Amino acid sequence: MQARAAPASIGQRLDEVDTPALVLELDAFEKNLAALAAAVKPYAVRLRAHAKTHKSPDIARRQLAAGAIGVCCQKVSEAEAMVEGGVRDVLVSNQIVGAGKIERLAALAQRARVGVCVDDADNVRALAASGAKLDVYVEIDVGMGRCGVQPGEAAVSLAREIEKHENLRFAGLQAYQGRAQHVRSVAERRALIEEAGRKVTQTEELLNKAGIECPVVTGAGSGTFMFEAQSGLWNELQCGSYIFMDADYGRNEWAAPLPRFEHALFVLATVMSRPSASQAVVDAGLKASSVDSGMPFVWQRPGLVYAAASDEHGRIEIAAGAEAPRLGEKLLLVPGHCDPTVNLHDWYVCVRKGVVEALWPVAARGALY
Amino acid sequence: MQARAAPASIGQRLDEVDTPALVLELDAFEKNLAALAAAVKPYAVRLRAHAKTHKSPDIARRQLAAGAIGVCCQKVSEAEAMVEGGVRDVLVSNQIVGAGKIERLAALAQRARVGVCVDDADNVRALAASGAKLDVYVEIDVGMGRCGVQPGEAAVSLAREIEKHENLRFAGLQAYQGRAQHVRSVAERRALIEEAGRKVTQTEELLNKAGIECPVVTGAGSGTFMFEAQSGLWNELQCGSYIFMDADYGRNEWAAPLPRFEHALFVLATVMSRPSASQAVVDAGLKASSVDSGMPFVWQRPGLVYAAASDEHGRIEIAAGAEAPRLGEKLLLVPGHCDPTVNLHDWYVCVRKGVVEALWPVAARGALY
Repeated sequence: MQARAAPASIGQRLDEVDTPALVLELDAFEKNLAALAAAVKPYAVRLRAHAKTHKSPDIARRQLAAGAIGVCCQKVSEAEAMVEGGVRDVLVSNQIVGAGKIERLAALAQRARVGVCVDDADNVRALAASGAKLDVYVEIDVGMGRCGVQPGEAAVSLAREIEKHENLRFAGLQAYQGRAQHVRSVAERRALIEEAGRKVTQTEELLNKAGIECPVVTGAGSGTFMFEAQSGLWNELQCGSYIFMDADYGRNEWAAPLPRFEHALFVLATVMSRPSASQAVVDAGLKASSVDSGMPFVWQRPGLVYAAASDEHGRIEIAAGAEAPRLGEKLLLVPGHCDPTVNLHDWYVCVRKGVVEALWPVAARGALY
Repeated sequence: MQARAAPASIGQRLDEVDTPALVLELDAFEKNLAALAAAVKPYAVRLRAHAKTHKSPDIARRQLAAGAIGVCCQKVSEAEAMVEGGVRDVLVSNQIVGAGKIERLAALAQRARVGVCVDDADNVRALAASGAKLDVYVEIDVGMGRCGVQPGEAAVSLAREIEKHENLRFAGLQAYQGRAQHVRSVAERRALIEEAGRKVTQTEELLNKAGIECPVVTGAGSGTFMFEAQSGLWNELQCGSYIFMDADYGRNEWAAPLPRFEHALFVLATVMSRPSASQAVVDAGLKASSVDSGMPFVWQRPGLVYAAASDEHGRIEIAAGAEAPRLGEKLLLVPGHCDPTVNLHDWYVCVRKGVVEALWPVAARGALY
C-alpha cells in the first residue's frame, strides 16, 4: 500500500497531472525493453533485471514478459516487495549481514527462489545457520573497489565454505564493475570490462582446478552489458537503468555494439515563479529529482537550462531568444540519476501519447532495510 | 499512515535497531529546542519553525510547546499533514501556482490559519478567486536569487493587488536570504543579512509611504537568525535545521551571537562488508542519507571517514591505527543535509541514552504536491 495518493488519474492529459510527478513514457519504456532483448539475443546470456532502479513489481513483470529470468535487488525489503508482487526468482546482489535481516531473507526463501552474495566466511556460516535454502554467489571485486573478495584464491576458499553447508548452493560469481558504467568513452568502458573479464577468468580457472562448478557469472550494467555479453564469460546480466535512460547515462558515448536507449523517465514540474526575463523557478528540487549525478535537464525546450536545485525549487535559466515558459506551465525534466529519483516518489504516472494510461505504485520506495 | 513498518520497537537498544534507520537523539533535540528559544528571547521576534526540515507533526507540536507560534511549509501537501497532525497556524512560505493546488490550499484554510507567499499579480488574483481567507505575504528577493519580486515598488504594487481582494489579507513580507545560511564565516553571514535588511527597510519605507501596514517581516534560517532577530527589522523567524544540526551546518563557523546546536539527527548503518584492512562498507548510501551537501560523517569514531556513497552503499576509509569496525557493527552517521535525508525515511527512531523511547512517523515524507 502506498501512503500517498497518486498525483494523477487515468485518462487525464499530462498537463492536468499534479506536480512534481514521476512520469513514465510507456512507448519509450517498451522500446527500451525490446532494444535490450534484441541486443543480447545472439549471446548465451540471460537477463536478471535490476529492480533497485524501478522498485516496481509492475515493471518487473514487464521485464519478465520481455525475457528476463528474474530480478536483482539490493535490500531484503526490496526483495520482499518483488516477491509480494509476483516475482518468483530474486537475487539480492548484495551482502546481507545481521540476524534480523538474515531471518527475513530465510522467510522469503520459503516463497521464492532467493539468491544472495557473500564476501565473508562468517557471513556464509550465518546464512547457513538460518536453515534456508539459498543460492549463494561469491562477490569478487573486478575493479569497483567496493564489496567483494579479491579475485582468485579468496573466492575459491569462500566457495568451499558455501559447499560445506547442505542448505546453501554455490551458485556462481557476482562480478559487477559498477565504476565502468559511467565512464564516458565506449573504448574505455570496453577496456574496463576486458580487465574485469581477466579477473573472472582467473577465478574460474582456480574454481575448475578445485573441482568446483561455477554455474553463473552475473554482473554488468546498462553502460557496458554488451561487452560482458560478447565476452563469453558472463552468462547473466543485471542491467537496470536501460528502461529509463537518465541524464547521466545520456552523457555517455553510445555506439555499437551498445544500443541507444530512449529517455523514458521524467519529472513533471510546474513553473511557480518567473522572477525575471531570464529566470523561471519550478516546483521540483532535490526532493523530487536526485542531484547526486548532476542536474536534470529540461526536455525538448531548447534554451532552458535547469541550473540549480534547492530542496523544493529548481532554478531554470532562460537563454536570450529562447521561448520562455509562462507561470503555471508544466515542463518535463529528465532526472540526472534515475534510481534515487524514483525512490523519492510514490507513483509512476504512466503516459502514452500525452494521456495517463496507468498508475503504478513505487512499491519498494523507501525499502531500505 | 506510513506505508512501511518502523525499523525499531520501543524499548530496544540502539544496537538492536534495523538499518539504515533515521535516529533522533532526544536529549540533543530538546537542548536545541531550548537553545533557540533562549537565544531569541530578548528580542521582539516570534518563531515560526520550518516543517520542511522535519515533516513531522510530532516535532512541530514540540516546537509549539517550546514557544513557536506556528510552522512554515513549502508544499500544500506538507501543510495538510501538519494541520492533520494538529497544527493550527501554517505559512506556506512559497508560491502556490495551479488551480488544483490553490483549491487544496483553500480547503485547508477552512481548518487552520493559512498563509502563502506571492510574487505575481495573476497568482494573487487566482488565490483571490478561490474565495479562501488567506494571509498573503509578498516575497521579496533579498539576495537569494530564486523567487520573489525585487525589493521596493514591485512589492508595494503587489501588496496593493492583495488589498483589492476582500478574502485576502496583506500579512507582510517574506524576506529569506537562503544563500547566506551556509556561508562559512560568521562575519560574512552577518554582512549578507545586513544587506538583506537594507532591502527590507527600503520596501517597508515605500509601503509606509503608500499607507500600507506591514504587520510581519518573516524569514531567517538556522545559520543567521540572530542577525535577523537583532536587526529589529524581522519579527518572525523561520529556522528549521537548528533542531537537527546536520554535517553541512556543522562546517559553518559558530560564534556569538549564534548559539551552538548539537547534532541530534543520525543515520544508523550496519557494516556489511570489510573488503580490506583499510575499508568498510555500510548499508547506507545515497538512498539513506542525501549527499547533495556532502558526505555524512561517522559519529565519534576517529579515523573512520565516509568517503563515497553509491545508491545503497557507503564506503568508509579506515585510517592506519584507527579502531576498525567489525562486520555487522552499527555506526551512527551525521547526514550532510538533514531535510532531504529525513525525506528518505518513514520513521524517526527516537532514542534516549541508547534506548528507543518513541517512534514518530515522517508524516509528510514524499509530500511533494
